[in-house]
Amino acid sequence: MTPEEVEQRGIVVRTGWEATSIEKQEKFVVVENRETNTQERAAFDILAITTGAIPIRPSIPGIDFQNVFALRTLADGIALKAQVDRWMIDQEKRAAGKGEPFNVVIVGGGYIGMELCEAFAKRGAVVTILEKADRILGSMDTPVTQIVEETIAREKIRLLKETTALGFEGSMGMAHKVVTDKGEFNANLVVLAIGVSPASALAVSAGIATGIRRTITVDSHMRTSAPDIYAAGDCADATFIVTGKKTYIPLGTTANKQGRIAGENIAGRETTFDGVAGTAQTKIFDLEVARTGLSSLEAEQESLDFFTSTIKGRSRAKAYPAGKPILVTYTVERGSGRLLGAQMVGQEGVAHRIDTLAACLYGRMTVEDVARLDLGYAPPFATVWDPMLVAANAALKEMGTR
Amino acid sequence: MTPEEVEQRGIVVRTGWEATSIEKQEKFVVVENRETNTQERAAFDILAITTGAIPIRPSIPGIDFQNVFALRTLADGIALKAQVDRWMIDQEKRAAGKGEPFNVVIVGGGYIGMELCEAFAKRGAVVTILEKADRILGSMDTPVTQIVEETIAREKIRLLKETTALGFEGSMGMAHKVVTDKGEFNANLVVLAIGVSPASALAVSAGIATGIRRTITVDSHMRTSAPDIYAAGDCADATFIVTGKKTYIPLGTTANKQGRIAGENIAGRETTFDGVAGTAQTKIFDLEVARTGLSSLEAEQESLDFFTSTIKGRSRAKAYPAGKPILVTYTVERGSGRLLGAQMVGQEGVAHRIDTLAACLYGRMTVEDVARLDLGYAPPFATVWDPMLVAANAALKEMGTR
Repeated sequence: MTPEEVEQRGIVVRTGWEATSIEKQEKFVVVENRETNTQERAAFDILAITTGAIPIRPSIPGIDFQNVFALRTLADGIALKAQVDRWMIDQEKRAAGKGEPFNVVIVGGGYIGMELCEAFAKRGAVVTILEKADRILGSMDTPVTQIVEETIAREKIRLLKETTALGFEGSMGMAHKVVTDKGEFNANLVVLAIGVSPASALAVSAGIATGIRRTITVDSHMRTSAPDIYAAGDCADATFIVTGKKTYIPLGTTANKQGRIAGENIAGRETTFDGVAGTAQTKIFDLEVARTGLSSLEAEQESLDFFTSTIKGRSRAKAYPAGKPILVTYTVERGSGRLLGAQMVGQEGVAHRIDTLAACLYGRMTVEDVARLDLGYAPPFATVWDPMLVAANAALKEMGTR
Repeated sequence: MTPEEVEQRGIVVRTGWEATSIEKQEKFVVVENRETNTQERAAFDILAITTGAIPIRPSIPGIDFQNVFALRTLADGIALKAQVDRWMIDQEKRAAGKGEPFNVVIVGGGYIGMELCEAFAKRGAVVTILEKADRILGSMDTPVTQIVEETIAREKIRLLKETTALGFEGSMGMAHKVVTDKGEFNANLVVLAIGVSPASALAVSAGIATGIRRTITVDSHMRTSAPDIYAAGDCADATFIVTGKKTYIPLGTTANKQGRIAGENIAGRETTFDGVAGTAQTKIFDLEVARTGLSSLEAEQESLDFFTSTIKGRSRAKAYPAGKPILVTYTVERGSGRLLGAQMVGQEGVAHRIDTLAACLYGRMTVEDVARLDLGYAPPFATVWDPMLVAANAALKEMGTR
């Protein structure tokens, strides 16, 4: 929506003003207009902090080169696209000759890094991903990440794991090279996709309580530690429904829900936000990848007593043409059999299946419950025993109750 | 599996033998071999009745014509396909000339009727569907059936609602015409798809208790009323988890689950079957159609105090190409807000989404719970507010809690 569209709903919008401090006791916000160099006090009865998150930009040499991008706003995306478009024109000009490769280096092998790598590869760029850890996609489990790595290798993406960007070399304000602990790589364009931090500085300086990863601490009503001050979205924390602990998983879905709940409470209708399950889905070339709840790595970090159950199912009945394999892996609490998390990868039928398991996590179901679910079956969409049921049966077998 | 493959698992298979009566007290089954005209007594310690269901064939004139099919076994399908293939060859021969149309009449507008109509239309047949009721797809709700009806009309399928087949006219063992209460229709082939009855005659004659629609009554362990006699699958009943009442929704998924649970209990491991949610999905031309729980018609029949909430969402983010509309309708208990059922229709993302709502029914969730679910979001697969969440929010608004 444009500011005008928002104003049509009876909301005053003031763009170009930055909130620089909050006076909790006197209930006003100091706002500054950088263009006119003016300062004002904006009084409030109730304040909502919805400042979002900021992409992490490490303080390494050359980080400010013009072709070292990070993505936050629509403007960031437009600027990035403009540079790519410029190269595409040059590339066409060069087409008759040799055509030098357009080297894109993506720093970070998470969801954003993977989506960028597909987008750049499809435009003909030579893509290199630098990943600090020994795996892509953060804490996703090896059976899943292995399949993703095979796919991106097939698409001629160079993935360098356990590789850290140390800086950029270049000239005329443009990086030409990425320097890493594993050597140097040519780069016409660099995109940083190494995660975000909550934009909580304003709240911190006002003495509002923050917690995990410096997120603004909120209760189930989205209230902060300060009276009449709410927070919601990528600047706030959330409860992880599987562990009951606070977490920081900044996603648009959660930001939207938290915003609505903050608004309802501010408007006087009491509603609560129970928390997040860590559900995420992404498309990486022809793969659908999805997760919810705890991965086995995360369950380990939580020192939970768990086991994993991994199966290979199919997206369609065997007799129906063009079915694809689906890998399903569950993280299951030993003893209780409670489902702690699920991950999936495959060429079809993955993205939406994860939602079923997200609902199971919300309902604190066991794998026995999951095995009993009356899931749909039709040959174009599933096997009679859906892969989710097969995985639940495998987990029950592992538990010795089968 | 072939009988040989089953025997390799250490199971004795005797084909060609029909069980004609059960002696409950003396614990044997009388079996007859029609080919050798012999009879035997097969003693049992534990007996499982898994006789399935039989397609309904009304006693109307001409029902035994060779080209009036019903589908139960693989052999039925092969015989039907042979007739279609024969016509295809004739059709090719006729191709140079005028090429008379191949008229297929499908009696019954349920899932099987719809799937048949697509299959025949794709092979070039002229398809007519006769449906007794004022709607196709049984008890599915009007917003869904309307979209399906529009699609089959676009595919040049003739749908005659409130039309009952009274008999068939023909010669040389072949039907040429279907006579209905709304006129006569040419038919080269007829398929009956008006549902199935449990094959419970054997159980009935043995004095085993039967209930709804003459299904064999079973408990959660799949035990019948007779000691040491179990039943499972399309011949047995099941509990409907939404109402807690017995129901008869014969589907392969349920048959598989019941068979497994009967087997486990027979083998000495106590497990239970909680029941079914009435989840079903089907593909009708380019549409995915799915349901779970109670439709509004069924809720009405149950005299429940409910309301419906219907929304139109999209399968992908607006900015992502090629998204399709998805219609979602919820049946919601007034007061408690409990989700009683859900139905969906659209060109993509429908079939698997229904499973999430089936899990919600299993977890006895309210629409408030549904609205709080942490569902996945990525532009190729969903909108930030998934259509399932939009429908839940719409229901909450209707309840006045929003």
